[in-house]
Amino acid sequence: MDRLDAIQWNADGLVPVIAQDASDGRVLMMAWMNREALEATLARGEAVYWSRSRQALWHKGETSGQVQVVRQLALDCDGDTLLLAVDQRGVACHTGRRSCFYRVLDGDEWKDAEPVVTDPQTLYGSTHHD
Amino acid sequence: MDRLDAIQWNADGLVPVIAQDASDGRVLMMAWMNREALEATLARGEAVYWSRSRQALWHKGETSGQVQVVRQLALDCDGDTLLLAVDQRGVACHTGRRSCFYRVLDGDEWKDAEPVVTDPQTLYGSTHHD
Repeated sequence: MDRLDAIQWNADGLVPVIAQDASDGRVLMMAWMNREALEATLARGEAVYWSRSRQALWHKGETSGQVQVVRQLALDCDGDTLLLAVDQRGVACHTGRRSCFYRVLDGDEWKDAEPVVTDPQTLYGSTHHD
Repeated sequence: MDRLDAIQWNADGLVPVIAQDASDGRVLMMAWMNREALEATLARGEAVYWSRSRQALWHKGETSGQVQVVRQLALDCDGDTLLLAVDQRGVACHTGRRSCFYRVLDGDEWKDAEPVVTDPQTLYGSTHHD
């Protein structure tokens, strides 16, 4: 059996993928892969997602350099979610923050809890995930 | 504006939710919430998901005691994924393992990388997430 046959793809042929920094466990982002994207990720050793908005493979960081080198790939108990441990080059978020999960609920408001560490204008728009 | 209006629910009115252990950053599971589940989570201070298989609210650990006390709620840049930092009582996975992401890709095979720490027969079937 192919190792990818263990994965339960959804009705659109996709699986959600959580990217976590291998160095300290910070959750960086969540995106999607189809079978082709996962095969490309495994072949390349860097995260390749499926952009739902562009309906195309998305090699994260291809133009901006903010690639994710894959250290480990884990699958959950029911096979429908992947967890990638990655070495993140630069920042994960198109806003220039390290993680996409920078808004934290504080009472009735979402507050920015993470600084912008890279000017987003230096990050190419084409790497903005869907 | 209601704080929940910042969330981009999908076509089914759901949002994926990553549960992460607040103590050490271990990613425990991924599940789904609708608006009602998120409101219940905020009111109760414990994770309440939406079970897609049962089409019902799912207060995780209600019967088994394996509840998730919510410490922080974060939203990603495009508002379509939530990250919960939780204190996990007992184990997150219905298999009796701490995390649902216990299968790690090792060459061509998925290998169990995490021990069963609680006999799954002591965990009630009704807490098995969808």
